[in-house]
Amino acid sequence: MLRLRSGDPDFARAFARLVKERRESDDNVARDVQTIVEDVRLRGDEALAEYTARFDGHAPADDDWRISPEACREAFDALKPDLRAALELAAERIREYHKAQLPGDRDYTDATGMRLGARWRPVDGAGLYVPGGRAAYPSSLLMNAIPAKVAGVERLVVVTPTPKGEANPLVLAAAHLAGADEVWRVGGAQAVAALAYGTKRIRPVDVITGPGNAWVAEAKRQLFGVVGIDMVAGPSEILVIADAKNDPQWIAADLLSQAEHDPVAQSILITDDAAFADQVADMVGVEIAMLPTAKVAKASWDAHGVIIVVDSLDEAPALANALAAEHVEIATDDPQALFDRIRHAGSVFLGRMTPEAVGDYVAGPNHVLPTGRRARFSSGLSVLDFMKRTSFIAATDAALAAVGPAAVALAEAEGLAAHARSIELRLGI
Amino acid sequence: MLRLRSGDPDFARAFARLVKERRESDDNVARDVQTIVEDVRLRGDEALAEYTARFDGHAPADDDWRISPEACREAFDALKPDLRAALELAAERIREYHKAQLPGDRDYTDATGMRLGARWRPVDGAGLYVPGGRAAYPSSLLMNAIPAKVAGVERLVVVTPTPKGEANPLVLAAAHLAGADEVWRVGGAQAVAALAYGTKRIRPVDVITGPGNAWVAEAKRQLFGVVGIDMVAGPSEILVIADAKNDPQWIAADLLSQAEHDPVAQSILITDDAAFADQVADMVGVEIAMLPTAKVAKASWDAHGVIIVVDSLDEAPALANALAAEHVEIATDDPQALFDRIRHAGSVFLGRMTPEAVGDYVAGPNHVLPTGRRARFSSGLSVLDFMKRTSFIAATDAALAAVGPAAVALAEAEGLAAHARSIELRLGI
Repeated sequence: MLRLRSGDPDFARAFARLVKERRESDDNVARDVQTIVEDVRLRGDEALAEYTARFDGHAPADDDWRISPEACREAFDALKPDLRAALELAAERIREYHKAQLPGDRDYTDATGMRLGARWRPVDGAGLYVPGGRAAYPSSLLMNAIPAKVAGVERLVVVTPTPKGEANPLVLAAAHLAGADEVWRVGGAQAVAALAYGTKRIRPVDVITGPGNAWVAEAKRQLFGVVGIDMVAGPSEILVIADAKNDPQWIAADLLSQAEHDPVAQSILITDDAAFADQVADMVGVEIAMLPTAKVAKASWDAHGVIIVVDSLDEAPALANALAAEHVEIATDDPQALFDRIRHAGSVFLGRMTPEAVGDYVAGPNHVLPTGRRARFSSGLSVLDFMKRTSFIAATDAALAAVGPAAVALAEAEGLAAHARSIELRLGI
Repeated sequence: MLRLRSGDPDFARAFARLVKERRESDDNVARDVQTIVEDVRLRGDEALAEYTARFDGHAPADDDWRISPEACREAFDALKPDLRAALELAAERIREYHKAQLPGDRDYTDATGMRLGARWRPVDGAGLYVPGGRAAYPSSLLMNAIPAKVAGVERLVVVTPTPKGEANPLVLAAAHLAGADEVWRVGGAQAVAALAYGTKRIRPVDVITGPGNAWVAEAKRQLFGVVGIDMVAGPSEILVIADAKNDPQWIAADLLSQAEHDPVAQSILITDDAAFADQVADMVGVEIAMLPTAKVAKASWDAHGVIIVVDSLDEAPALANALAAEHVEIATDDPQALFDRIRHAGSVFLGRMTPEAVGDYVAGPNHVLPTGRRARFSSGLSVLDFMKRTSFIAATDAALAAVGPAAVALAEAEGLAAHARSIELRLGI
């Protein structure tokens, strides 16, 4: 864990180093992924079978690649009642929040008589990657699938690795609840390639979202343009801005809720009280000892945890904007005052009673958020990621007469004679 | 030029080939671009100077890399009055259309007492690539710069190559009119890398948009994630759906207005009348002969032009959806009926008096549109490309008591103990 004080002479340099630090490795991943993607593009299901055997230790029969809707419903029906109710509450709140994101169409006629507008439509098919193993989260399935369904996507395809053939029943239950149309037993870069290019068995989709390891993230990055993707995802992070009036144990738990995700996750505390900083650091030690996820959480906190002691929390917004963190908690009496000055953040959690974890599951806003300072230019997942806009123009004789000559002048200035001609012929000039 | 008839037995296969055809070459471009980008990242301005000398035959003095606001204003003042008025009309109409795209923030309190919402903010800095040479279009500068300024971007940086030191005065004039904050004499993949990573001379930006050649497009693709980009752009295309009541000369001009852009541009006509198809093909020949852009237009039409004769225009929407073209003209008496069935298109031009060129310049909607079937999943440039959304959550004691237990149940099911703990501690459970 790194400790910084904003008053120290070396602070600016140390903070700049923190901002620049990249926790993403990409050494041989890009090349490996390129090979796999090209192989799946050329050989389709045959390549999928080989990679699935190699990476997942699993060779499904020809009719066993797809997990049936019945299997998903059975997994849902088998949930314990409290877990089932929790998933249903989460789904309901996510759906409500995302419904309000549906964009409105435009269709109007301007003063020249020209009709102008824009029309939103969902993509035909969306593919959703769901990791196996440590990061197989049903909440993540809901957060990706529900916005797609709210957008109106007709074909929602889930791909998920099933190591040794074992599917995660919680993921299948969530797939049922979210209304996934197809679930396939494939994972890794090969699954992303199959979704983008299609195979005999799996028809291609138009947009691919969902979290994954470095190979999955790199495959999405490489296939961006062949399909739409949500974002380039990196390791998760949280920035907690807290004064000394907080319970240090609560803040320690918040920092660890990020750290337990991944050894390269990052948790940063900004506080204006050095003694409080010490208390939180101590409580992190106490809390880690209690966690079944202690090994991951400790690795993350030791290598990437940061405590910054500032002279005044007034300094916090500028630091937060430079960090442009995925999650920002503001645990003060008047969090809005600081929030008003924060321009770059994926999602902000206001006040002492809003731990980040509430946003991971049941608050409603999406938990798929920009990482690695990408909140400077990108947003959390929304229904817009599953829709696209078509603009339209309808000119009348009068409208074309009003604006056409200006278009002709510009086309001629740009040396585009046929552009000019297409208007001149209609105007008889 | 390729002629197809939807009634022919081989049509399905030939059309599928057309849909799959890629007009983008990427052989060695990706590797070259990777080298340049890495070089600029490591050596900054020194690398920029070397590439500028090599590719643009130009070695600016240290204080001559930036083109001053005064030089841009002078270029604007020197415009002939009709061209100046045309640029002003275009700018005004583009601004009006894009202002209505500004998204609304959300801030509400739900039944549990939880405050939820989302807040849109512009990115801090946007970089706009403007090509030199054949594709140095002032209209393109307006179409990229104005949405950024409408979004509220404070720092709009234009990069443009000036071969042998010569800047295009129309581009400088448009930069003045659109309110560009900085204009730099650099082009190619090296300029995109400079915008993404920054150099001593040029500060980095957050989003890069604008058209360019294959190297520029590939640099943007590779740097997606380091910065935001508008889209992966490919060669332009138009699909014209026209019945026999149209003047074949008008339709020929429309097809050529796309073809004259680029030898790999594509123009496709769908009509239900074989005789009309012949007339258009003949008029294309006549019109090409008159064009100063004949060489490019002929190369495009010969290699990539397509005429599809269908039995009924009722077949057109399905074909249009498969092609997902950048531009679609519907030149019929009732264009709306066909438009209602078209889901995938960048922009649609309705009726006989709406040539695509009017949308390139003065209609108002953006002319930066998805190409190469990407209208299946992406949209034209808009103010949203220069903004990002931060969601926020503020729970009260009561709200956390209402939804927290469900979050705890889900966190435990996912094996994320610190997530559960951060809520349990606050609820005292």
